[in-house]
Amino acid sequence: MTVPPVLKSPLSKSLKIALIQLKAGADKAANLTKVTKFVEEAVTKSPTLDLVMLPECFNSPYAVSEFRNYAELIPTGETTTLLSSLAKKHGIFIVGGSIPEIAPEEGNKIFNTSLTFSPEGEIIAKHRKVHLFDIDIPNGITFQESLTLTGGDKATVFKLGEFGNVGLGICYDIRFPELASIASRSPYSSFAMFYPGAFNTTTGPMHWHLLARARAVDNEMYVVLCSPARDVEGGGYQAYGHSLVVDPSGKVIAEAGEEEEEIIYAELDKDAIPKVRDGIPVHYQRRFDVYGDFVGEGKAKVSDK
Amino acid sequence: MTVPPVLKSPLSKSLKIALIQLKAGADKAANLTKVTKFVEEAVTKSPTLDLVMLPECFNSPYAVSEFRNYAELIPTGETTTLLSSLAKKHGIFIVGGSIPEIAPEEGNKIFNTSLTFSPEGEIIAKHRKVHLFDIDIPNGITFQESLTLTGGDKATVFKLGEFGNVGLGICYDIRFPELASIASRSPYSSFAMFYPGAFNTTTGPMHWHLLARARAVDNEMYVVLCSPARDVEGGGYQAYGHSLVVDPSGKVIAEAGEEEEEIIYAELDKDAIPKVRDGIPVHYQRRFDVYGDFVGEGKAKVSDK
Repeated sequence: MTVPPVLKSPLSKSLKIALIQLKAGADKAANLTKVTKFVEEAVTKSPTLDLVMLPECFNSPYAVSEFRNYAELIPTGETTTLLSSLAKKHGIFIVGGSIPEIAPEEGNKIFNTSLTFSPEGEIIAKHRKVHLFDIDIPNGITFQESLTLTGGDKATVFKLGEFGNVGLGICYDIRFPELASIASRSPYSSFAMFYPGAFNTTTGPMHWHLLARARAVDNEMYVVLCSPARDVEGGGYQAYGHSLVVDPSGKVIAEAGEEEEEIIYAELDKDAIPKVRDGIPVHYQRRFDVYGDFVGEGKAKVSDK
Repeated sequence: MTVPPVLKSPLSKSLKIALIQLKAGADKAANLTKVTKFVEEAVTKSPTLDLVMLPECFNSPYAVSEFRNYAELIPTGETTTLLSSLAKKHGIFIVGGSIPEIAPEEGNKIFNTSLTFSPEGEIIAKHRKVHLFDIDIPNGITFQESLTLTGGDKATVFKLGEFGNVGLGICYDIRFPELASIASRSPYSSFAMFYPGAFNTTTGPMHWHLLARARAVDNEMYVVLCSPARDVEGGGYQAYGHSLVVDPSGKVIAEAGEEEEEIIYAELDKDAIPKVRDGIPVHYQRRFDVYGDFVGEGKAKVSDK
């Protein structure tokens, strides 16, 4: 089996990012006004900013009963138009969290969709949440996205201009390590995974930091999670907040609080990944001869004694 | 692609285990005497014990210059003989940490090998460390097992009597998620990964708990790590200690200290795995249609926009 090596330095230039941890309410226009304001604040405070990221479901409540009501066409809907214009106006990449998308070409199905825009305002990535959030923890949380949403059918990796490749998943997608593995390994060699996400007060304390750090360490890449702030008064889904940035050694280098709307900033250092990969070179030590195509069909080489 | 489902209840009976965190010195006979004493202490304190686990390299110093000097034939060497007799005498499973093995049938190569024994004293599993510990962290630790060791060429999964299947890796193997994924998924449906391991004072604080918890949560299985205690006075490799047991929700349910020799006990509850898998059912939500055979050859379905 021939597996081309991953890049030791997949990030060719340090990347300055801002994560906008906002609260989304029921008023869509107000949500979009808030986005505009926060993006302007971020670029004002950090004039050399390269990228702004928004959380999952930043233009609507996170509720299965509401997704269809807030859903928009892509690329003609108002949210897409706004983000495109903001990216172009400020000359920055925008990882546009996620919004409910209605897809007439697919029988008006609704998807939880993330768009990324170039500094020219072009859509350079579109990810439809692959793994729907259907969970049921007694005395914790029950949620079933699949009541109104359809899952996407592709992993997402794209070129972030001159910086290099990145992968993107949405929230629950982070529980499935394959998306980050696909992005970080050849032929993609991404330097980061971006996950707009909204864990909650049950799953957040259990797994939010753990999953972010695990994806970072297993793949020796940056992992960036942007959450809504918790909307305590709103009374709906209680997001965990704690937007965070993890470096390729697994260290949290930026983190937001839980209930406050805020912007956090981080610089993804172009020298960090090669340093980590030189030290603990797991990327070059993988034993594909052993794993086989192990996805679950027993193709691996397994010792019976 | 047809992927048979994993078992929701892969552990058919609760399993009582003891982890022996001992210090191994240069005197092999003394090391083996210590093993005998600790195993007896464990079964005395916990008369209904099902399984005892030992750490990596419990009969020798952990040093590339010493592996060949301490290496034994399997199954005729003295350590194998001793562990077999202890398992039989006490009627327990023994996950026999690891020892340096010399393999005449393979040109006298040396392997870092773990044996598991049934309560009848039979060898029921043999794992040769697949991923050799070759790392170089400036101002941290440099180690190169491959100077004297050869890596194994198989993942290891085996039937632990009536309890169910388990997977096993050795130390650095834990950095490669595939071994746990192979073990936990069909057709194996293991309830636990056992890793005899010896992280150190650089990599231990960074990643020991993180990796154990990540393997547990991603696979919703138990993860059991048994380390040597740190041998501060011995002055050689400084093991991290912190032997631990993580439940399938990612919670640490038993943990040893760093420098003391000690035995820790845990019960792997047969009801814990189905409870976790019912709550967050990632095992049944995987999208093999998306991942493809993603090991690194670009077979996944990836969105270019």
